[in-house]
Amino acid sequence: MTNLTPNSSFSLTLRLQIPNRVGMLASVTQAIAANGGLLGQIDLIEQSRKESTRDITVDAASTEHAETIVQAVKALPHIQIVNVYDRTFNLHRGGKISIASRIPLRSVSDLAMAYTPGVGRICTAIAQNPEEVYNLTIKKNTVAIVTDGSAVLGLGNLGPDAALPVMEGKAMLFKEFAGIDAFPICLATQDTDEIVRTVKNIAPVFGGVNLEDIAAPRCFEIEARLRRELNIPVFHDDQHGTAIVTLAALFNALKLVNKSLAEVRIVINGAGAAGVAIARLLRKAGAEKIWMCDSKGILSLSRTDLTEEKREFAVKAQGTLAGALQGADVFIGVSVPGVLTPEMLQAMAKDAIVFAMANPIPEIQPELVTKNVAVMATGRSDYPNQINNVLAFPGVFRGALDCQAPTITATMYLEAASAIASLVKPADLDREHIIPSVFDDRVVTAVSAAVQQAARLEGIAQS
Amino acid sequence: MTNLTPNSSFSLTLRLQIPNRVGMLASVTQAIAANGGLLGQIDLIEQSRKESTRDITVDAASTEHAETIVQAVKALPHIQIVNVYDRTFNLHRGGKISIASRIPLRSVSDLAMAYTPGVGRICTAIAQNPEEVYNLTIKKNTVAIVTDGSAVLGLGNLGPDAALPVMEGKAMLFKEFAGIDAFPICLATQDTDEIVRTVKNIAPVFGGVNLEDIAAPRCFEIEARLRRELNIPVFHDDQHGTAIVTLAALFNALKLVNKSLAEVRIVINGAGAAGVAIARLLRKAGAEKIWMCDSKGILSLSRTDLTEEKREFAVKAQGTLAGALQGADVFIGVSVPGVLTPEMLQAMAKDAIVFAMANPIPEIQPELVTKNVAVMATGRSDYPNQINNVLAFPGVFRGALDCQAPTITATMYLEAASAIASLVKPADLDREHIIPSVFDDRVVTAVSAAVQQAARLEGIAQS
Repeated sequence: MTNLTPNSSFSLTLRLQIPNRVGMLASVTQAIAANGGLLGQIDLIEQSRKESTRDITVDAASTEHAETIVQAVKALPHIQIVNVYDRTFNLHRGGKISIASRIPLRSVSDLAMAYTPGVGRICTAIAQNPEEVYNLTIKKNTVAIVTDGSAVLGLGNLGPDAALPVMEGKAMLFKEFAGIDAFPICLATQDTDEIVRTVKNIAPVFGGVNLEDIAAPRCFEIEARLRRELNIPVFHDDQHGTAIVTLAALFNALKLVNKSLAEVRIVINGAGAAGVAIARLLRKAGAEKIWMCDSKGILSLSRTDLTEEKREFAVKAQGTLAGALQGADVFIGVSVPGVLTPEMLQAMAKDAIVFAMANPIPEIQPELVTKNVAVMATGRSDYPNQINNVLAFPGVFRGALDCQAPTITATMYLEAASAIASLVKPADLDREHIIPSVFDDRVVTAVSAAVQQAARLEGIAQS
Repeated sequence: MTNLTPNSSFSLTLRLQIPNRVGMLASVTQAIAANGGLLGQIDLIEQSRKESTRDITVDAASTEHAETIVQAVKALPHIQIVNVYDRTFNLHRGGKISIASRIPLRSVSDLAMAYTPGVGRICTAIAQNPEEVYNLTIKKNTVAIVTDGSAVLGLGNLGPDAALPVMEGKAMLFKEFAGIDAFPICLATQDTDEIVRTVKNIAPVFGGVNLEDIAAPRCFEIEARLRRELNIPVFHDDQHGTAIVTLAALFNALKLVNKSLAEVRIVINGAGAAGVAIARLLRKAGAEKIWMCDSKGILSLSRTDLTEEKREFAVKAQGTLAGALQGADVFIGVSVPGVLTPEMLQAMAKDAIVFAMANPIPEIQPELVTKNVAVMATGRSDYPNQINNVLAFPGVFRGALDCQAPTITATMYLEAASAIASLVKPADLDREHIIPSVFDDRVVTAVSAAVQQAARLEGIAQS
């Protein structure tokens, strides 16, 4: 688990004063490399006759690793550390999103149109014809990102304040990838009724609701009730976003190994929001043999401790995860770091498919997989085959908003998954390339079109 | 009431095809002028040998007036109307604000810092030290603009959807004038408990709450409870914004007529949110003789129909508004169009001060005021002395956010009013110039500094 590769989430910029003598800068870069730091940009800030000030950017693998690197540089003779910036913290100061005015406001006449008295005519028009709210306000392009902070990333119940940086990041992704204006709503309550009531109360401004980082099983009831009681799309990304991208990756992985969804035995480890949603979508797509495990092992019919959602997938088999994996074709992990061992993988079928998606540290490091594994994927950007929700949610909402669908259906999830899978052309498909990059700009268009087309075929498009 | 001057809130752009013959364009401009339309920009869009296409922008005084102008142009021989754009409606399409990303998101490394896995370190930092939410998220610069749509401008209870354009406009003003990121929250409930609960639930993201267009008397309880129960500033702009700017204007008007706040008799017509807040602030500033009126006349001790807030200002006198005005020095109207007559003004004291702030149409048109009126002000931008909340709320929030004040006090209102008044230099002060323009860029700085200084002196600044 500590053997991670350096990455930008632990990126430092060291500002150093270095004497202008042969070998001085080299001693710095060498010290960084010797301590496992990955060198990035090196900028010359200032140069005097005797010394140079340089900013050296270094990726580390963890906070401790970063500290080791700083200490190594500090120990060098003649080199002085002026400052150490933590780039991730610096970038977060003041937050990551802002509100922008779409029109200028420079004169009395601008004010009279955009605000009083002109705006009164717009209010009256909407009061007389409520559908006009979709034309004359931000509603049709605006999504609420709602969390109660109870399941923040893999970090647990950190509460609404600590969840805000994630929601801001999500809002950036909505904007950057799909041009959608999303705003974070972090709730100071973790009570199901209260959450449902609050979201309904604030709904008028929004064209859609993206639920995020809400713990299971509460998330299931909240989503179900909001879907029933609101006439705008409600989408729990941890469930359906993950399920869509997982299915897309699985479609392509199965092509590579020449197995069919109906015949493979799939083990899903983790029976929270993501696990349940993946199981449901795989079943809808035609999977017939799904064994789910939670921390106590296989969801077995013989167990008496299962929630309603878990009972949906209870099977005759019983035992541990290791037992479930014997002879299995597919492992899908949405659980915790390190629960898989090479021995467990070795016991899987030939041409096994392993999606180890625990974040930020997978169920098993890709370096450790055994030879019988044909395809390996994780949730990380620094390994091949990143299964990333960013491939799904921007396009899903783009499609739903564009046709004003009042809800997002399982058929739309399925179509979105097929669309994502289809973007990897047969010629490009290989074990390290089963899913498009998040920076492939065809993704949003393809997903959005698939969702919109599904809405039209289902007869629920309202615009 | 129909005798309004043309203004941009009823602005049209006519696209016309006009033959290239002498006198043709003149016939158009003449028809518009003859019908009372105010000509703005004239753009040549296209020219062929025989004719020109031009966009002609015209301000009208009302929707009906605009229609009259269009019909007059339509009736002209040889002139063809290609299209009529309503500029106010056009400008509102798709809404007036959007969400912007403050940092680029172009590479895997950007993603790893702004989103997972890097963002997890930020979440952990906030969970460990809750105050960090002010440094590492949008909170310290973000304000919720909360309405239940029950008192939208002067238009009444239009509901949350129809209120949204006003809240978007307000968000623009926050950004444009004070660099504050404000987001509209339009509530699908008009129940006091429910509103309080909802605002408390969504509070974690926000550094302040601006209440807007909520009907009296509900607004008083909502504000009082939220002030008690939240540790961020809560400000009902219809009350305190209006009160601050009114007091600022009154300070300067009194200088002009050489009367003191303690000695003048003030009649406030309208005992809703604004009226009550104005009365409270004037009293705090030293006013001793305030008579308030509602639609039933003077708030008299003998009346049995008064709410708690109205009882605060009940006086021995009784009678109608006309009676109250006899011999009064100051009229402050936050009521409805047209309730003042020239006769009523004539009965006021010498050098009377009249603030007729009903929106969009004042209690009396400025053209109708009598000679004994020394200073006249309205809420409109097309007359001198516009008493506009935009002078107060951006600076008030800027100041409160900058020093992280947990609340906004009456002392801050008072200091803000003095600051606004002080911006009109003695040499510039005259009956048509008692208050700075909303585009005077000293205003936000001055108000913000006054509020921040008051917070520090009161010992409530937290940063």
